[in-house]
Amino acid sequence: MLTTKGFAAFSADAPFAPFQFERRDLTANDVQIEILYCGICHSDLHQARSEWDGTVYPIVPGHEIVGRVVAVGADVHKFNLGDAVGVGCMVDSCGECFDCRDDQEQFCPKTTYTYNSPDLHTGGVTYGGYSSHIVVDQHFVLRIAEHLDLARVAPLLCAGITTYSPLHHWNVQPGQKVGVVGLGGLGHIGVKIAKAMGAEVVLFTTSPHKAADAERLGASVVISKDAEAMRSQRNSFDFILNTVSAAHNLDDYLSLLKRDGTLCLVGVPENPHPTPSYPDLIFRRRQLTGSLIGGIAETQAMLDFCAEHNVLADIELIGVTQIDQAYERMLKSDVKYRFVIDLASLSAN
Amino acid sequence: MLTTKGFAAFSADAPFAPFQFERRDLTANDVQIEILYCGICHSDLHQARSEWDGTVYPIVPGHEIVGRVVAVGADVHKFNLGDAVGVGCMVDSCGECFDCRDDQEQFCPKTTYTYNSPDLHTGGVTYGGYSSHIVVDQHFVLRIAEHLDLARVAPLLCAGITTYSPLHHWNVQPGQKVGVVGLGGLGHIGVKIAKAMGAEVVLFTTSPHKAADAERLGASVVISKDAEAMRSQRNSFDFILNTVSAAHNLDDYLSLLKRDGTLCLVGVPENPHPTPSYPDLIFRRRQLTGSLIGGIAETQAMLDFCAEHNVLADIELIGVTQIDQAYERMLKSDVKYRFVIDLASLSAN
Repeated sequence: MLTTKGFAAFSADAPFAPFQFERRDLTANDVQIEILYCGICHSDLHQARSEWDGTVYPIVPGHEIVGRVVAVGADVHKFNLGDAVGVGCMVDSCGECFDCRDDQEQFCPKTTYTYNSPDLHTGGVTYGGYSSHIVVDQHFVLRIAEHLDLARVAPLLCAGITTYSPLHHWNVQPGQKVGVVGLGGLGHIGVKIAKAMGAEVVLFTTSPHKAADAERLGASVVISKDAEAMRSQRNSFDFILNTVSAAHNLDDYLSLLKRDGTLCLVGVPENPHPTPSYPDLIFRRRQLTGSLIGGIAETQAMLDFCAEHNVLADIELIGVTQIDQAYERMLKSDVKYRFVIDLASLSAN
Repeated sequence: MLTTKGFAAFSADAPFAPFQFERRDLTANDVQIEILYCGICHSDLHQARSEWDGTVYPIVPGHEIVGRVVAVGADVHKFNLGDAVGVGCMVDSCGECFDCRDDQEQFCPKTTYTYNSPDLHTGGVTYGGYSSHIVVDQHFVLRIAEHLDLARVAPLLCAGITTYSPLHHWNVQPGQKVGVVGLGGLGHIGVKIAKAMGAEVVLFTTSPHKAADAERLGASVVISKDAEAMRSQRNSFDFILNTVSAAHNLDDYLSLLKRDGTLCLVGVPENPHPTPSYPDLIFRRRQLTGSLIGGIAETQAMLDFCAEHNVLADIELIGVTQIDQAYERMLKSDVKYRFVIDLASLSAN
């Protein structure tokens, strides 16, 4: 067993505090990773504060993990000590179902999530990346190109795959017109990936002050409250990636799609969006759909694609003692565009 | 000009009555057709009774037309006198737009519908198939196999293509599990076509008395009010074709789809369906979409497919004086499953 230092929330309203726990002994297929960086995803906050069902305390969040291999099990041949690797939202799945056999582990009904999920190995609960080390089955360990700024890679493990997967699954091609709704953690990476795929990218935002940033990322900008600007975009998009989870009128975006265009939701609304306009679907054969993270093989493809095209997250690097403050700022969308914890800060706490 | 006998509604609440009008002289690309049979579609009723915007009286409905070629223009080489032919919902489109060039004339913004549509040739309004003859550009004339029961072919021109097109577009394959919601004019043909495509077909209906009919058509039956029966079908469908236009809860069907499954609406609701469950879309990457008739090339493919697989509508053949009575029965779903007018009855009226 490996004694591990982490930062945990001990209740829904307690600040993060040091927490020491055990990682399992390596099985033949396991990889032991020293964690260097871990991104902060909004779902970390939802679960730490028990805004979704089923939080088990203490909770150690974190599923945007980058680190280095420090030990491997007997059957692990594809990773060497010192390799830069990543771990995303999942650390196990059944491996046998229709979804797993199709490399879509994110849809497996038995998926083990990286934190706050029943841990098949220990009988307890999984602990995530706000910690010094993690032990993960090799199938769920991703290879990361050595030359990259590893702190800026971390958010790709959730925000990157969540936006890459739908752009890839719905086959976005060079020259297509792609919309991205919302310029946050997901949206800013979505813009970069869609640009790298060769698409013409339009960023929709309610915040005029984000326009300069979006343009720097290579997108043109439409202020979604501007009815005339929205009207001028009608029937012109092949694909729109909607990263906003607050309930809003989807018709504003459905009507912007060409015939056979797709509006894909990656944010789960707490309250439902209003009912969409069904004629908007029928009279242009448009599609409304959603997407969830991505499979492991696709996550590796995403990391390779981002390495090739130099797609990295824009981040603010923080120490473990700044997690609570980061959560408060995240609630105000006051981050450009992802907080990443430098786990080196653990040694002083 | 060709003096033509038809039956028209002269106002929203008037019964159908004889109406004499002129068909245009043949241009080089025109085909003149003696109409033998014309199916009655629910949209005929909506427009005759001015339930949608824009009805011009007198209105001669009818867009499920089967007849024989009686004259052709100088540039028509693919049809001969006496050929059995069909005309569906469209008689003209621009021929130049993105949709027309892609054989998707139904989405062309300048489509001329078969009736109650501005007529580019006459400057008036188009008159449909409740009439003795029609003159149509050869691009919009479909070839029909001679050996078929032509009265039973007529409904394929709208109900057939409206159900075939989505089943074909979303690539229904042998062995897939396909649901059809509603056993009416559209639904009964949808079941037959999906069966002929090799799918396992389940018919969803609120009416237990329709079960025997659906089973005769080759579908198994689920009574959609039976919550337990619905639950037992969860996560099992590749594709569901929803022919019901009354507002209803789509989640009942979204939850029945496998990952990557598609729920396609072909009925336009007067009042919107309730807002769908967005987690149902996101957590199984399901798609909600709609479809509108089909293109001309696809309509020909549908007619050839139906001829090969002996797919014909179940009909009740009526005379022109029975149209009002047929409308009343249609409102009560009291028809198995499509009324077809025998235009031979025009000569006595």
